[in-house]
Amino acid sequence: MENWIKAETSFEDIVISSRVRLARNLQNYSFPNKLDTHKGREVVAIVEEAFYKSAYMEENFESIYMWDNDDITNKSFLEKHLISDKLIVNKDRATFIKDSNETISIMINEEDHLRLQCIVGGLNLKEAYNEINKIDNLLEESLDFAYDKDLGYLTTCPTNVGTGLRASVMVHLPALTKSGAIDGMINMLSKMGLTIRGLFGEGSKGYGNIYQISNQVTLGPSEEEIIDNLLAVINNIISEEKSAREKYMKSYGHETKDSIMRSLGILRYANVITSKEALNLLSYVRLGVEVGIIKDIDKKLLNSLMVDILSSTMQLKAGLTMSEKERDIKRAEIIRNSLK
Amino acid sequence: MENWIKAETSFEDIVISSRVRLARNLQNYSFPNKLDTHKGREVVAIVEEAFYKSAYMEENFESIYMWDNDDITNKSFLEKHLISDKLIVNKDRATFIKDSNETISIMINEEDHLRLQCIVGGLNLKEAYNEINKIDNLLEESLDFAYDKDLGYLTTCPTNVGTGLRASVMVHLPALTKSGAIDGMINMLSKMGLTIRGLFGEGSKGYGNIYQISNQVTLGPSEEEIIDNLLAVINNIISEEKSAREKYMKSYGHETKDSIMRSLGILRYANVITSKEALNLLSYVRLGVEVGIIKDIDKKLLNSLMVDILSSTMQLKAGLTMSEKERDIKRAEIIRNSLK
Repeated sequence: MENWIKAETSFEDIVISSRVRLARNLQNYSFPNKLDTHKGREVVAIVEEAFYKSAYMEENFESIYMWDNDDITNKSFLEKHLISDKLIVNKDRATFIKDSNETISIMINEEDHLRLQCIVGGLNLKEAYNEINKIDNLLEESLDFAYDKDLGYLTTCPTNVGTGLRASVMVHLPALTKSGAIDGMINMLSKMGLTIRGLFGEGSKGYGNIYQISNQVTLGPSEEEIIDNLLAVINNIISEEKSAREKYMKSYGHETKDSIMRSLGILRYANVITSKEALNLLSYVRLGVEVGIIKDIDKKLLNSLMVDILSSTMQLKAGLTMSEKERDIKRAEIIRNSLK
Repeated sequence: MENWIKAETSFEDIVISSRVRLARNLQNYSFPNKLDTHKGREVVAIVEEAFYKSAYMEENFESIYMWDNDDITNKSFLEKHLISDKLIVNKDRATFIKDSNETISIMINEEDHLRLQCIVGGLNLKEAYNEINKIDNLLEESLDFAYDKDLGYLTTCPTNVGTGLRASVMVHLPALTKSGAIDGMINMLSKMGLTIRGLFGEGSKGYGNIYQISNQVTLGPSEEEIIDNLLAVINNIISEEKSAREKYMKSYGHETKDSIMRSLGILRYANVITSKEALNLLSYVRLGVEVGIIKDIDKKLLNSLMVDILSSTMQLKAGLTMSEKERDIKRAEIIRNSLK
């Protein structure tokens, strides 16, 4: 399974990544928000004991203790979508276990005791589900999960009760955004029990024309039904985006090419740039690569750049704390060097 | 004397060109607005007879009869600042005589019977005046100019009576424009009897941050006084613009560099561009070359590009009539190829 940041995806890159996560809680402990530091770390130890049973797990996974790290380091995991911000809030007792490839992340003491997550490049929801299901089975051999025979898995927030499964897909929809069709789509999806959010959750709608689409209902349908339902919707959105792109290229060929090439020009020449502007311009460059207008840029580069220019990842790599202005200058430099 | 479009100028290119023109009228003819086609062309013949006396003049100058040309050809002369739009309005009886270098233009049947103009690169008002003065003397040997011993040369519009001289300078003032100081300067200049206008006259203020500054008073001071007065003001404006640039580079170094480099990036990558946007971006590229931020672009190229991307010049060179959209596409192509 390929890390989404490094993956060369199919579907003309409309789908950037697929993510599946399961919420689980231990029978004999209060939910994480009721745990103090001491009790919380006890949960960490119990989960680790259950997880690192084999030499294989020891070799391929490692624990990251949130309390050991500074904020920049922790936020850089967030920027890679490896953890959630709730894990940072609970940093005194929170931990996550990740594989060397950074596709799997087992968050401990997030909103629930366990959030098992697999995030991979492209439209690979089933594969991600299978991966995370294996880990779930492994842990269930040694741990007593809070489970009700009528409701299913019990969770801190009632919206996660049942399967505890949330499947989500990160999609790049520049043409649907530009045409305005995205707004109708958001309405339609919410009526179907799905949620659509921006790249960084609520309030980041349209950043880089990237959206996360996920299921809202966890109680009732089976895991397979949730994933199949989401897959059907995503395939629909993919073909909508494709025809919107075709329409744009046909009706506004020169203008579309102009937006794409200007975006590349600005990224190659800017000396100061915010992450929001950079993501939006990178979105058009991505579109340009996908529709064949830009030929000299490696598609893989764009995914990694999308993360590398984020504030904490950038500061972590540079090994220093930077002011907002310094970051905008450094970001422009990273982009110029990458897109040379 | 160098054609302004091809000149490599000093003064850090703040002064793009200098222009001097004299208004003269023939004693025995009504002013051009009162002449019919037949009478008007009689004036043309009389002026030509007086002008082409020597083999030297025959060899180095040629007459362009406005009535022989289509609109695109005539407008392209306007875009090179070789003629005024009034000459196009009077095209049935208007002509101009130009040298092969296109620095001198003797307009016949513009607002006055004769408008003798010399336009050269850089701050060279005196040199331009000397050139045009020679032509004036030559013509005066054979022609009877309308002259009043108290008022001086008589002209169609009273604002030109006296010396009939208008001296003007085309200046590039990006820093004074950006800082907003240009507005105070416009007020100050008008109080001093000077006029400041945009690149294409009234209503084009700030196009490419380029302004034309000229004397308004023609009656009273001598030719030398008019030119010395304008020169003093221009030298003042040059030092104001220089210190505004220094201040900008000191206080907003990164942002200024960013604007300059983004302008170059857009010009090198755009696929559709209006002349107004192109002129504004070229202005920042020019600034970049002048302050040493851009090193790989020949300064001379920017002056010629400033004319080559104008609608009529572009269509004339391409040998075809283009719609507005086609021109915007062609313009972007010309710029991309030139700035490669």
